[in-house]
Amino acid sequence: MVYQKQLTVTTNGRGTYDITRDISGIVSESSLQDGLCHIFVHHTSASLLLCENADPTVRRDLETFMKRLVPDGDAMFQHIDEGPDDMPAHVRTVLTQSGLSIPVINGRCSLGTWQGVYLWEHRTMAHNRRITVTLSGD
Amino acid sequence: MVYQKQLTVTTNGRGTYDITRDISGIVSESSLQDGLCHIFVHHTSASLLLCENADPTVRRDLETFMKRLVPDGDAMFQHIDEGPDDMPAHVRTVLTQSGLSIPVINGRCSLGTWQGVYLWEHRTMAHNRRITVTLSGD
Amino acid sequence: MVYQKQLTVTTNGRGTYDITRDISGIVSESSLQDGLCHIFVHHTSASLLLCENADPTVRRDLETFMKRLVPDGDAMFQHIDEGPDDMPAHVRTVLTQSGLSIPVINGRCSLGTWQGVYLWEHRTMAHNRRITVTLSGD
Repeated sequence: MVYQKQLTVTTNGRGTYDITRDISGIVSESSLQDGLCHIFVHHTSASLLLCENADPTVRRDLETFMKRLVPDGDAMFQHIDEGPDDMPAHVRTVLTQSGLSIPVINGRCSLGTWQGVYLWEHRTMAHNRRITVTLSGD
Repeated sequence: MVYQKQLTVTTNGRGTYDITRDISGIVSESSLQDGLCHIFVHHTSASLLLCENADPTVRRDLETFMKRLVPDGDAMFQHIDEGPDDMPAHVRTVLTQSGLSIPVINGRCSLGTWQGVYLWEHRTMAHNRRITVTLSGD
Repeated sequence: MVYQKQLTVTTNGRGTYDITRDISGIVSESSLQDGLCHIFVHHTSASLLLCENADPTVRRDLETFMKRLVPDGDAMFQHIDEGPDDMPAHVRTVLTQSGLSIPVINGRCSLGTWQGVYLWEHRTMAHNRRITVTLSGD
């Protein structure tokens, strides 16, 4: 079987947004027992993250790391019409994931104890981010 | 159903090669309605990229970023027999994707408006790159 | 069909561990002919790697690169309770893959000639790492 569902995440600018419960809910309503849950973000300046879900400092440190690795307004970038955070947002997306697949076992999304699913908004402004979840299997 | 197809992309050295139309064509001929399109590159010095498809400067800036992050001929690398771009090509592959899955909805590859699919050749010399596309679903 | 199998990899600290044969074995016992093999690691401080399998220097150079990119004990990190390698382990996981899909063709895992599958342990201490392999297709 295949079960697909759209999801829109409204962000208020750069940062990580926990979507673990949304994903688990879609897995439940699909009635899939065994297979895969695929999550896809239809944008090139936001991405997906599987990350430690207990201490929010982890995601803050990730943000700090990315800011240092891909500085906003870096003089090396020529694609600057949409602002100093635009090209860094594309780079950050390329260095992380636009799609994630997670095993579904016995009707549940089989994440590790410390794994959460996050949308990572890379632009500094608020956006609506479109996500498609595809469940497939038995 | 499962539908698989091989694709060879001939590159003329480092850079990004748009394969969006090839992928869309394979989705069409598969007659898959709903499911996933998986793209896989069978090499360790070329990778796949979902990237902004409107302004080519974005992909040039990505190249500039990668050249600075993983410089050719960096003295830290010991695997240098095949040239100064060989080990950087492996690193760039590891930091990006060897495989991508994209939702198929109503018989079409459901990319975002600004998403294109690219093969990223990381070696400076020309290569033939082998890709397998796997369609699965209903 | 869907076929799932758990795998535990015992590591003795930071480094890459070849799991290509384990994965091939699971593909064989599944009797899947055509489809995809998905590998997922249920942790946020270890990841998966498709990498050159001939010269071990490649994986040593990757380690060197990551140590320079994300130095243990970097003063920018605030999540330090579990040691100087903890936050770098999360960053390294985010920059690589928690899940990989590989095409299965004619009953075999269709890796390129030089592609091997590795678990990348990012913590300096030994760990047991849980992996789920999901085979799906015909």
